[in-house]
Amino acid sequence: MLHLYDMLSSGNAYKVRLMLWQLGMPFARTEMDILNGATRTPDFLKVNPNGKIPTLVLETGEALPESNAILWYLAEGSRFAPGDRLGRAQALQWMFFEQYSHEPYIAVARFWLHFPGVLDDKRKAQLPDKQRGGYAALDVMERHLARHDFFAGGRYSVADIALYAYTHVAGEGGFDLKRYPKIGAWLERVRSQPGHVPITEEGSPR
Amino acid sequence: MLHLYDMLSSGNAYKVRLMLWQLGMPFARTEMDILNGATRTPDFLKVNPNGKIPTLVLETGEALPESNAILWYLAEGSRFAPGDRLGRAQALQWMFFEQYSHEPYIAVARFWLHFPGVLDDKRKAQLPDKQRGGYAALDVMERHLARHDFFAGGRYSVADIALYAYTHVAGEGGFDLKRYPKIGAWLERVRSQPGHVPITEEGSPR
Repeated sequence: MLHLYDMLSSGNAYKVRLMLWQLGMPFARTEMDILNGATRTPDFLKVNPNGKIPTLVLETGEALPESNAILWYLAEGSRFAPGDRLGRAQALQWMFFEQYSHEPYIAVARFWLHFPGVLDDKRKAQLPDKQRGGYAALDVMERHLARHDFFAGGRYSVADIALYAYTHVAGEGGFDLKRYPKIGAWLERVRSQPGHVPITEEGSPR
Repeated sequence: MLHLYDMLSSGNAYKVRLMLWQLGMPFARTEMDILNGATRTPDFLKVNPNGKIPTLVLETGEALPESNAILWYLAEGSRFAPGDRLGRAQALQWMFFEQYSHEPYIAVARFWLHFPGVLDDKRKAQLPDKQRGGYAALDVMERHLARHDFFAGGRYSVADIALYAYTHVAGEGGFDLKRYPKIGAWLERVRSQPGHVPITEEGSPR
């Protein structure tokens, strides 16, 4: 059975859980307490030398880290992966945008503001940069969604899953999503997809 | 003809030039002076609303941003893309690692230290964090290369191109590559691939 090294509150881990639910694939999970060093133990570093969750262990025993690479692996050949070359490249374009221009601002601001005891003075000084970068990413998304219902290939795909994970909890990072009506409508479209589960879902499909 | 919005000194842009050379695909290029706002003009923001290079304009007129998504588009179906599902996911794993755990440290430290007039006091204060993050990424690569000649699929691929771009100029970011013998040998293997060109190559294959 697939085994997910997971953390319930992590948007990156949620991407994988959401994909597994929408594909109807059962999985086991280990909740990792990253604030208390669970990803830095010698045992876990043997699984993922980069010491990060999510990491998905396949039935063959291979361990696959990086949330968006896991999404790609799971989605290949399904309705969640665009069927043409340009569509695949555009899905990846938004997934790299997510990891480079979106997650480092929105997810990190959320981590600092939403988890107790995390926001020290050094981070407080960097918060305005995180806010500025996060709003820039939301601006880019809003502009795209003014002309498209989804991010790639003309329909709901892995690119939407990747971007939904931290966008839908951006409020917890101090971002005002009411400024973004197109993003608001897209979040609703994502939530209405068959098999959607919230970030708090701890179970597995059967 | 393919048209690349480019900057010669950018490692992200170099990835695309190197891939085009190794595929033997001719291209035109526009050198963008990002330090003087070339990527922030209304005209360029119409091409890429995220205002970043590299951006590749295809023969159909579609503009594709994000260096690693461009690599994937160009490599599909070629010897530079792994032929199996796990190999593709592992190539993407390293490409997401590159954009999340490698480039934001090594490329940014290089930008601050290598380009005149860029290192202000605020950046100087953040430089130790950049050094620490960059060395952590190099450690992960060294550990992988102790057991593998290349990053994914058992042979030279887009994953190696993505990681080579900023690793081979990490010294310009203040990183001491002599500490990493496996990375040194891998850089040599990458340089010995047919069709390899250096980051300074301004031309196009015919």
